[in-house]
Amino acid sequence: MYTIKELQKIISEEIDIEIKRLNGLEPKNLYEPIAYTLAMGGKRLRPVMVLLAYNLFSDKVEKAIHAAIAIEVFHNFTLLHDDIMDEADVRRNSPTVHKKYNKNIAILSGDAMSIMAYNYLQNSESKNLPNMVQLFSQTALEVCEGQQFDMDFETKMNVSIHQYLNMIRLKTAVLLACSLKIGALAANAPETTADLLYVFGLDLGIAFQLQDDLLDVYADQNIFGKKTGGDILSNKKTFLLLKALELSNQQTKIELLDWIDRKDFDPDEKIAAVKQIYNKLNIKDITINSIEDFYQSAISIWNEIDLPIETKAELLQLAQMIMERDR
Amino acid sequence: MYTIKELQKIISEEIDIEIKRLNGLEPKNLYEPIAYTLAMGGKRLRPVMVLLAYNLFSDKVEKAIHAAIAIEVFHNFTLLHDDIMDEADVRRNSPTVHKKYNKNIAILSGDAMSIMAYNYLQNSESKNLPNMVQLFSQTALEVCEGQQFDMDFETKMNVSIHQYLNMIRLKTAVLLACSLKIGALAANAPETTADLLYVFGLDLGIAFQLQDDLLDVYADQNIFGKKTGGDILSNKKTFLLLKALELSNQQTKIELLDWIDRKDFDPDEKIAAVKQIYNKLNIKDITINSIEDFYQSAISIWNEIDLPIETKAELLQLAQMIMERDR
Repeated sequence: MYTIKELQKIISEEIDIEIKRLNGLEPKNLYEPIAYTLAMGGKRLRPVMVLLAYNLFSDKVEKAIHAAIAIEVFHNFTLLHDDIMDEADVRRNSPTVHKKYNKNIAILSGDAMSIMAYNYLQNSESKNLPNMVQLFSQTALEVCEGQQFDMDFETKMNVSIHQYLNMIRLKTAVLLACSLKIGALAANAPETTADLLYVFGLDLGIAFQLQDDLLDVYADQNIFGKKTGGDILSNKKTFLLLKALELSNQQTKIELLDWIDRKDFDPDEKIAAVKQIYNKLNIKDITINSIEDFYQSAISIWNEIDLPIETKAELLQLAQMIMERDR
Repeated sequence: MYTIKELQKIISEEIDIEIKRLNGLEPKNLYEPIAYTLAMGGKRLRPVMVLLAYNLFSDKVEKAIHAAIAIEVFHNFTLLHDDIMDEADVRRNSPTVHKKYNKNIAILSGDAMSIMAYNYLQNSESKNLPNMVQLFSQTALEVCEGQQFDMDFETKMNVSIHQYLNMIRLKTAVLLACSLKIGALAANAPETTADLLYVFGLDLGIAFQLQDDLLDVYADQNIFGKKTGGDILSNKKTFLLLKALELSNQQTKIELLDWIDRKDFDPDEKIAAVKQIYNKLNIKDITINSIEDFYQSAISIWNEIDLPIETKAELLQLAQMIMERDR
């Protein structure tokens, strides 16, 4: 078995080779932005999940590299196009593609990345390839659905917690779930185990996103790296805001909606005021409890996975790594 | 054997069923624009080519429907994203998606269409599916390359005819070629025949695009339907312009470049002046000759295709239909 660190090293080296190859292709304005996007880095969480799941059943993780790259390229494609849609200028301290190049180049190189993801996947050697492609396609479409729901929520006031959880399931969790299952499928794992890994990834993905919502408000700024309160300033319909709207009495609700409607405000004052409402409603603990519920659900699934404890230990490590990030 | 008209009817009915299904899906803002795009219509040329090629080897064309829809959905995805990039407000007399909805919805529903194209293809029942997906992926990436070259050419003055032909091969011709070959592959046609169909489609596709360039300047406006000279006004690097730049002497070249550089001009005057230069350089005949060369090359390939004349007659009909359009 490989450790997560070892798998991160393996996939990073493979992606670096791809980046070099892409930088040599024509037209430069199509392939350079793709290489640039992939070179932005990150923890390579999803491709590591592919390799880790594969590694539960086989040591020849090099056979899952193509599938792992496919998932990472697809994920980076969604970030690239999301950045255009969100008009985000910076990602991981670098200018986004539509800022560094232009919007048209960003649209088109994203399109090419989504096609390349299929190309990489198609190059996997596995008897299970049709099932892998099927799962990937379904997941990719769900990610688009999640992104559209997220955009719809921006202008919709009465979003329920149920609708919100469904949105983050689609936008974030299914790709983590797919990463694990596709690795298992590549290794010809038993179907029931592959399905358990999927649900494990799904629960973990939802916990991961809820934690993201929580950290935006309650993170230790020194550890978090970026300023907290961004979601509050942009009126993002996070779990915290929706829960607060759900639990607040008439007066508090009016106060909260007033902060959301205000065009002129002092940013720090708005963050402090909304945070005070959250504190009054105990939103921090409620969110932590909900994260814990999804995390514990993932652990129950982990217990059900029919593999020796020492084999599946690394999977638990991954779950802990995801949940302990930046805290 | 089915006639082209019959195949058009078959595919149109199937696409109409898909449009109804898509209009029932959530989120509405993702799937309605896709249905809207598909409902804009057109001649369904590419899916007809898939069915026609399949029909050369088998009568059960219903088995190629999924592949045909895949190609049409992919083609419409490229139109949708191209319209964003070109800031085109109208297509086929209807507002484009980014005008009717908004730019973000247009980007995302395009992304979903490209994924859906793979989904449809994946649902084809054919032993040859891996080869079909492989060809489709390669073609899809080439179409992106062609679009990027086309955008690069906008700001590049010294584009050679060779570079231009390569661009239209990628942007336009490979998808027509792929349509025929994928239909043949779906029917388990011999590889050599499938390859001949590909090259036939490639030549035809280049002739088709050159004809498009020609018609923009020299079409009978009453038959053409839209005003001629659009490419001249937008300084589009068409075959005609590049050929004119190649063949003109110093003085004519300066005159042509002056028209390209001018910011203030009377549109009709510019069209007339550039057209006069084209006339002087005999560009119309040169373009017609070039179209004829590619068309004749397609016919030679058609002759090589090892099928009874009466079987492959419909293919020739298709070629004639493509080349006689709007003239």
